[in-house]
Amino acid sequence: MTDHTALRIAGDRLWSTLTETAQFGAIPGTPRGMCRLTLSEADVAVRRWLIDAATAIGMTVTIDKLGTIHARRPGSEPGLAPIAIGSHLDTQPTGGRFDGILGVLAGLEVVRTLHDAGITTRHPIEVINWTNEEGARFAPAMVASGVFAGEFTLDYALAQTDRDGITLAAALDQAGFAGAAEPGAHALAAHFELHIEQGPVLEAEGIEIGVVNGVQGIRWYDVVVKGQTCHAGTTPMALRRDALQAAARLAVAVDHIGRSDPGRSLSTIGLFQAYPGSRNTAPGEVRLTVDLRHPEVAGLDLMEVTLRDRMAEVERETGCTIALNPVWYSPPVRFDPGVIDAIAGATQRLGYTHRTMPSGAGHDSVYTARVAPTGMIFIPCENGISHNIAENVTPAQATQGANVLLQAVLDYDRRTA
Amino acid sequence: MTDHTALRIAGDRLWSTLTETAQFGAIPGTPRGMCRLTLSEADVAVRRWLIDAATAIGMTVTIDKLGTIHARRPGSEPGLAPIAIGSHLDTQPTGGRFDGILGVLAGLEVVRTLHDAGITTRHPIEVINWTNEEGARFAPAMVASGVFAGEFTLDYALAQTDRDGITLAAALDQAGFAGAAEPGAHALAAHFELHIEQGPVLEAEGIEIGVVNGVQGIRWYDVVVKGQTCHAGTTPMALRRDALQAAARLAVAVDHIGRSDPGRSLSTIGLFQAYPGSRNTAPGEVRLTVDLRHPEVAGLDLMEVTLRDRMAEVERETGCTIALNPVWYSPPVRFDPGVIDAIAGATQRLGYTHRTMPSGAGHDSVYTARVAPTGMIFIPCENGISHNIAENVTPAQATQGANVLLQAVLDYDRRTA
Repeated sequence: MTDHTALRIAGDRLWSTLTETAQFGAIPGTPRGMCRLTLSEADVAVRRWLIDAATAIGMTVTIDKLGTIHARRPGSEPGLAPIAIGSHLDTQPTGGRFDGILGVLAGLEVVRTLHDAGITTRHPIEVINWTNEEGARFAPAMVASGVFAGEFTLDYALAQTDRDGITLAAALDQAGFAGAAEPGAHALAAHFELHIEQGPVLEAEGIEIGVVNGVQGIRWYDVVVKGQTCHAGTTPMALRRDALQAAARLAVAVDHIGRSDPGRSLSTIGLFQAYPGSRNTAPGEVRLTVDLRHPEVAGLDLMEVTLRDRMAEVERETGCTIALNPVWYSPPVRFDPGVIDAIAGATQRLGYTHRTMPSGAGHDSVYTARVAPTGMIFIPCENGISHNIAENVTPAQATQGANVLLQAVLDYDRRTA
Repeated sequence: MTDHTALRIAGDRLWSTLTETAQFGAIPGTPRGMCRLTLSEADVAVRRWLIDAATAIGMTVTIDKLGTIHARRPGSEPGLAPIAIGSHLDTQPTGGRFDGILGVLAGLEVVRTLHDAGITTRHPIEVINWTNEEGARFAPAMVASGVFAGEFTLDYALAQTDRDGITLAAALDQAGFAGAAEPGAHALAAHFELHIEQGPVLEAEGIEIGVVNGVQGIRWYDVVVKGQTCHAGTTPMALRRDALQAAARLAVAVDHIGRSDPGRSLSTIGLFQAYPGSRNTAPGEVRLTVDLRHPEVAGLDLMEVTLRDRMAEVERETGCTIALNPVWYSPPVRFDPGVIDAIAGATQRLGYTHRTMPSGAGHDSVYTARVAPTGMIFIPCENGISHNIAENVTPAQATQGANVLLQAVLDYDRRTA
């Protein structure tokens, strides 16, 4: 077998595809803003562009019943499942041109590079554009990879509606992307995903590549704090049961919980509403949300136990009652050691600075990890910003990420049956 | 001069007037709820009722240019200014039948008692129904007593509009209550006001009468806390500038400031809004209000200094910025020692338990204190609740308050030129 460790993707060509395809859904008047909702005109246009680009280098395109595009380049060994390089081409309503898009177009660039070099891998290589990752048009997010992995049924996914009441099934029909293939019917040898970090860690630490070892678990709670509304001028402090004060103490406790396991635990209060909301009335009720994250189930469990302990303390201190209602749980995901090794090894050989890190956000790889060895590569993004028209990366960062992807796939292809 | 210290009001009659006049503005389907907005049909009806009741016992009624009703019973010594017993008959949109109303109807009851007993005081006695105390239809609150005391000009008051754009001047004309007398043109020898406490202190301490020595000062602030919006899943705790966490720490500090001078200092955060308000985004901005109260200017000053110190600490701890904008100041009011003595002495002679206390809320007496010796009497109200259809007192409590009013007025009349 030939040594391809010196092979590199064409950074200029990758950047050109990122720039060229950004015409499909570009937000007028913004330098880089994108609105490319699932199966919108812009999404259909970029899907057609991808299919043309893939077939132009001899790839075979299959569309599944959820519109997911599987563009396959054959391998040399019959019977091996494809190594997938997947992500998504849809965006948030005011998103950028890298979140998801980089992962798909870097996959195309990897295949173009192999094509130009006349290299045939052992496994087929399958570039995947997962439908509706963002969840911006149809809920839930990552619905196509979720069906692929058995998290949702096909019927459930097809019945989801957008805000105009159009079902995903109808949108697929209308766009001409209701394919024949059954999602999940074919096995994947692996799933690689290159993505922007969507956080500030790599940039802050001056590191070029994040080797993603999993996706942290998330627990969401609704919290209702109840006290007694009272007049700001006539109620002595000692006779108050001020829901805002109880909620403020709870908020400080939630912050401490997020700092209890530095680099791993995270906690956030995103919504916080005080009622009745009058300047001279101490609030009788506060509704707030708590978001706890940790890469380990045991870590999440400890955070919740601590939260409940602190709730009870605040109740005793303030005379208020606090109800904690779990509303969602996404368990932690651990990526495949073999895929992680391939990514880490490629990064080292390429000489890029790197660190191991969990993903803070959800990705299609969360679901593919259930049915195939999966791993992710992060590159830094400017100020850690995504889901925003300010989202940005440099050509050099995109090139580095795609080279890691190329070399990791080649290494995995070489070593794995 | 005869000793009238054994004289008592007729508690049954007082309670009957409270019950009977509650028909004017009673909220259907509630046991005691009242909606009697200034110069509404219900307010006009109760005003006519008061005028009829006053003239029936020989009082002379004067209406001033703001519709305030002055019902006067002559005294025996020519040249003495009247001792006023004033409060208001208007209510909040979902108010009760005692706030303000008790003060006016107890004034009528005092005069009825003097009338029945054939007692002529040295000073005239003037029962006053101040227009628009609540501020519920026209802003600002206490506008008529404010003009009487020179706080506002007459033109300013008459130009105020309700939410339908109707001016106070037009509403007075339409109701037939645009009188000829100039507000503030006649002097008062004193102003007595019987009122429900609107707070829980007397009830909590099991005390019958509050001898009010003044009205606490109030400082209102708007506070803007600014940090950096960030993703709940991808931003390490150490890299956050979370406006909600800064605001929570500030809220706890505000509470401590309110507890710094027990029984005197009060602090409240009534409004608290976090932006952008998304479950998985740490807020970049919080807007909140601070209400500080203290019976002494020096106390208020110290509270503000402490607040600014703590703000600076929170800024250092969190990396957020905090802007404190004063929006309103109502200086503390000290009531007249002679009037306070008359009320305290009457309470003692009547054998009622009592305590000295400031008023936490604003009243017409805040303004009359600027132009006449003024004092207030508080009785407990159920659970400290007012501005609410649940507002309640017992007949015994109303009777005790009115007896203190009677005896205090008689004592003041006897002792004062």
